[in-house]
Amino acid sequence: MTKVTAQLSVSLDGFYAGPRHNGDGDWMESAEAAAFFRVTRWVTDAMAWRERQGFTGGVRDTNSEIIAETFEAAGAYVMGRRMADGGEVPWGDEPPFRAPVFVVTHRPRETLVRQGGTSFTYVTDGVAEAVERARAVAGGKNVAIAGGGSLVRQVLRAGLLDELELHVVPVVLGEGLRLLDADLDLDVKEAIELTPVRVVPTPEATHIRYRVEGRAPLLLDDRGSGGGPTTTR
Amino acid sequence: MTKVTAQLSVSLDGFYAGPRHNGDGDWMESAEAAAFFRVTRWVTDAMAWRERQGFTGGVRDTNSEIIAETFEAAGAYVMGRRMADGGEVPWGDEPPFRAPVFVVTHRPRETLVRQGGTSFTYVTDGVAEAVERARAVAGGKNVAIAGGGSLVRQVLRAGLLDELELHVVPVVLGEGLRLLDADLDLDVKEAIELTPVRVVPTPEATHIRYRVEGRAPLLLDDRGSGGGPTTTR
Repeated sequence: MTKVTAQLSVSLDGFYAGPRHNGDGDWMESAEAAAFFRVTRWVTDAMAWRERQGFTGGVRDTNSEIIAETFEAAGAYVMGRRMADGGEVPWGDEPPFRAPVFVVTHRPRETLVRQGGTSFTYVTDGVAEAVERARAVAGGKNVAIAGGGSLVRQVLRAGLLDELELHVVPVVLGEGLRLLDADLDLDVKEAIELTPVRVVPTPEATHIRYRVEGRAPLLLDDRGSGGGPTTTR
Repeated sequence: MTKVTAQLSVSLDGFYAGPRHNGDGDWMESAEAAAFFRVTRWVTDAMAWRERQGFTGGVRDTNSEIIAETFEAAGAYVMGRRMADGGEVPWGDEPPFRAPVFVVTHRPRETLVRQGGTSFTYVTDGVAEAVERARAVAGGKNVAIAGGGSLVRQVLRAGLLDELELHVVPVVLGEGLRLLDADLDLDVKEAIELTPVRVVPTPEATHIRYRVEGRAPLLLDDRGSGGGPTTTR
């Protein structure tokens, strides 16, 4: 059954990139890029990612297996406009997705068909519609929210996300673009509950996959002073 | 050898409590408390914590073992003033620490000696001095930074922290008091690097212990396009 999934590399303090580049000078030289490069270093070092990019070398390890599995699980992608624009040139004639990509945008544009199975379809009627169009062509595989972070947050906020996998990289960045930032539209004493369904530790990242359970109230309790039976689990 | 350690329960978005209570009304009814209760629920449910509080019942599980181990490893504590004030009454005559506690404060006060091995000594010449005084009496065990979050951050910022254990609770809170907030005094393109030394997954929390390596510059790279040998690890 098709699930809507997202996975993102984040620092221990929750950033997926440095402070947003203001457009002056080269993005590659920006603080935004420097932090993004740090949290995705485990990806660019990995065999499975390098093969998709047509690069030689790489490390064949657990991280690489996780990337291979992530690519394999996706039948279609939904992507933010800024990410799609930023990738258009570097991804070249044969982008690494090898599946249909639906770009959430305000600007209509003709579908772009690339080699190797990747196409970019521009959806102007919102993220829910983009998810539905991706689901229709995912062939029973997952709809992967490719990013960036604000799109992942939007999908989570709308209650459309089934699974969130965070690759938590052991670095503290201090500032930048934070995945789980304040605009989740939660009420006071309301939270989004999740369940960890898989944890894979590696030295380069702790990979934690969560099932999203949904919104729930935050309840007060008696701090355990009410006693109760002793149980073992 | 004595290490300076800290451990804190945080939500997936990095909060250890809800938005700071402004002092109106009962703290126990506040949004700050509601979120704090949620992220520490795994603690209050655990046998090892309940025994220390003199409460009956509880769950005997991996979480409880982690709490028992944390209590056992600490030879002395360093604590923030707000946490010490807040706990003074609820902790009662026999607080759960059973070791000397050094409270970082601006207000001099006589040492408070409690039953069961706990004492509160008020240190007015800064966090580094409090850590040194705790180290001197820790008897080879660890100096545990008891919290709150701003004290943990201060110790991390000062380069005094050897190990940080986060109990990452599968809940998104949206707002509140964030452990790894912006006042870490990091330069642009500078980060604090860590190494995960232990990951223990449970349904209630993912327990990740990090060794703090220290500050390091964020480096640009060629995004893997430079090629290189294939390796396995």
